[in-house]
Amino acid sequence: MRTTVGIIGGGPAGLLLARLLHRAGIDCVVLEARTREYVEQRQRAGMLEQGTVDALREAGAAERLEREGLVHQGIELRFERERHHIDFPALTGGRTVTIYAQTEIVKDLVALQLADGPPLLYEAEALAVEKPESATPVVRFRHEGRERTLTCDWVAGCDGYHGVSRDAFPAGTARSYAHDYPYSWLGVLAEVAPSGDELIYARGERGFALHSMRSPTVSRLYLQVPNGTDPDDWPDDRIWDELAARFAIDGDWTLHRGPIMSKSVTTMRSYVHEPMRHGRLLLAGDAAHIVPPTGAKGLNLAVSDVRVLARGLTRLHRTGDTQLLDRYSELCLQRVWQATRFSDDMTKMLHAQPDGDAFDHRMQLARLRRITASRHAAAELATNYAGLPLPV
Amino acid sequence: MRTTVGIIGGGPAGLLLARLLHRAGIDCVVLEARTREYVEQRQRAGMLEQGTVDALREAGAAERLEREGLVHQGIELRFERERHHIDFPALTGGRTVTIYAQTEIVKDLVALQLADGPPLLYEAEALAVEKPESATPVVRFRHEGRERTLTCDWVAGCDGYHGVSRDAFPAGTARSYAHDYPYSWLGVLAEVAPSGDELIYARGERGFALHSMRSPTVSRLYLQVPNGTDPDDWPDDRIWDELAARFAIDGDWTLHRGPIMSKSVTTMRSYVHEPMRHGRLLLAGDAAHIVPPTGAKGLNLAVSDVRVLARGLTRLHRTGDTQLLDRYSELCLQRVWQATRFSDDMTKMLHAQPDGDAFDHRMQLARLRRITASRHAAAELATNYAGLPLPV
Repeated sequence: MRTTVGIIGGGPAGLLLARLLHRAGIDCVVLEARTREYVEQRQRAGMLEQGTVDALREAGAAERLEREGLVHQGIELRFERERHHIDFPALTGGRTVTIYAQTEIVKDLVALQLADGPPLLYEAEALAVEKPESATPVVRFRHEGRERTLTCDWVAGCDGYHGVSRDAFPAGTARSYAHDYPYSWLGVLAEVAPSGDELIYARGERGFALHSMRSPTVSRLYLQVPNGTDPDDWPDDRIWDELAARFAIDGDWTLHRGPIMSKSVTTMRSYVHEPMRHGRLLLAGDAAHIVPPTGAKGLNLAVSDVRVLARGLTRLHRTGDTQLLDRYSELCLQRVWQATRFSDDMTKMLHAQPDGDAFDHRMQLARLRRITASRHAAAELATNYAGLPLPV
Repeated sequence: MRTTVGIIGGGPAGLLLARLLHRAGIDCVVLEARTREYVEQRQRAGMLEQGTVDALREAGAAERLEREGLVHQGIELRFERERHHIDFPALTGGRTVTIYAQTEIVKDLVALQLADGPPLLYEAEALAVEKPESATPVVRFRHEGRERTLTCDWVAGCDGYHGVSRDAFPAGTARSYAHDYPYSWLGVLAEVAPSGDELIYARGERGFALHSMRSPTVSRLYLQVPNGTDPDDWPDDRIWDELAARFAIDGDWTLHRGPIMSKSVTTMRSYVHEPMRHGRLLLAGDAAHIVPPTGAKGLNLAVSDVRVLARGLTRLHRTGDTQLLDRYSELCLQRVWQATRFSDDMTKMLHAQPDGDAFDHRMQLARLRRITASRHAAAELATNYAGLPLPV
């Protein structure tokens, strides 16, 4: 097989890139290791920055999102049994965020791709990217029982943190930075209306909890749990009781309980691979960087990478100008490091630190207290949460 | 001896309190364990918030400060061989800070006190505060070779971190919070004009360095060094070379070298004792809390405590109203915790972390980079540095 841009990975990053390239008249092929059903059901993020919504609109993939997405005007912080609203439009000059599940974005993009898009191969497992320094890098992959090759002008590694793309950087050409956090999230999807209109970030002695939603009838809730927690140790009642305790405030507020459809435990890691380009191989999204989910930045960063990549390839295609592609890594990484910093700050401020002492605890409270007392501190949180400017 | 307010400690906190009480017509006695010469020469802070200058003016002790103090419009941050000016007036609505050494404040206050003030006893070492819960607490102290007692209506513990006042809180009536940092400061006083008009906070691979000044002809410089460092291992040339390396930028800038008059190593600690009052004993300044010096908050917090304390005692004296004194601890501690948070943030952002990895290093750079890129982040730094609002 031969194509202009070989895209490894059919998650939101790979699919959006394919869509943007297709609309620019650039030939591409998407290889996805899993099945369509698996990818469409995989529970992931759900908070979209305005720039992410704009990018999906630009790709012609925002029709249902604009109809069904829930526009949020802020978030709520809870600590010491108090609630504090962080008003995004007031603090950021009118910006909002949109709640729309990643699974739905994937479904929308898959439907478009299969209708008129370039090839999207499921159960096509990339094995290696070869000769990334050459003019014609090759993706070796397994499909329908046999090994095949995809020869490309460019390879986009959109295959996530566990993908193979990153392995194609020869020793000495890249450096990685990682931090593991000493706690995990137990995430549950429940068939019950959300217990309020906004995301609630709650910090307490018992640990962090997050109230979120996927739709007006589906709640998404998270509990900080120790690393190595087995979800089976958390029967539904225990989950609801713990959530209720962590969200408790002085004043009226009720947690809506309902059937739990799924539960899973996620570890928390920060990771950045630098640079994001080697020769004609370019990484985007989780393949190059991951953040703890506290800042809701993972999907948004992937989309921001893809936007730069699509623009760079489009400019090259139209004018022969490689300037934007040459700056790809640098442009993306500035924003990646800032989102990593923000995610790290939010994570450390909101979680009970298993190895923390009473002083650390009081520092967390002082940081939260400051955000509710200072317009600058609140605006800094809101600006980062709603999304820093896109690189291009 | 009998007095209304027994003040333990003749540093800036105790002396300023004595001055304010004296002007309000309240009888007091100051006990200082050391000699006048020692206290007047002890090298300490030198950055005054506007509220600190105001409090000294209110005490009638700002005449020389207003003549000789250097008004600063901001600070400079250095990292990755770049320099960035943080413009306080522009970011805070016109606020500035004043550079005037603590030794000079002490000299000014001592001169006033000895001229017309209440008794100030040197080499009067407080041994214990007794019966703080009673209507007449007693300070037991040693003076001129014998033990004496000072019976008071109120006792102000202004005797610093190593003082005895805090010991008078019975077990179970207070809690303390502490954090030790894994590095120290080697501070030098040099007889040379400052190398620039502003304080410079420099962060680099080799560690933190601070350029400060005491007057137009005296520089005060600091180097991050490992805990346990012996100043004798740092001959003058080594100090100047290391300072020059840490302040180096791309572009013109020269470190002025000159005779080093003193060098000493200071450890870095955060400490808060809660509450700050027990019965008729009230702690102020370092006796109740210490911060690492990176945020220049120690002296300013002491002055802000003393201001609340003087107002509380004055109100009681004039109207019999104890409301302000009853809220003393709560009013002071809100500000103390915020200053502790700010000092902790500045410290952790600017020092090379001996146990930090490459990720931590990049997070520090991302935080610094953000301050130079975001008006909200810069304003938050400037607002905290120039000083949060006084409690009363």
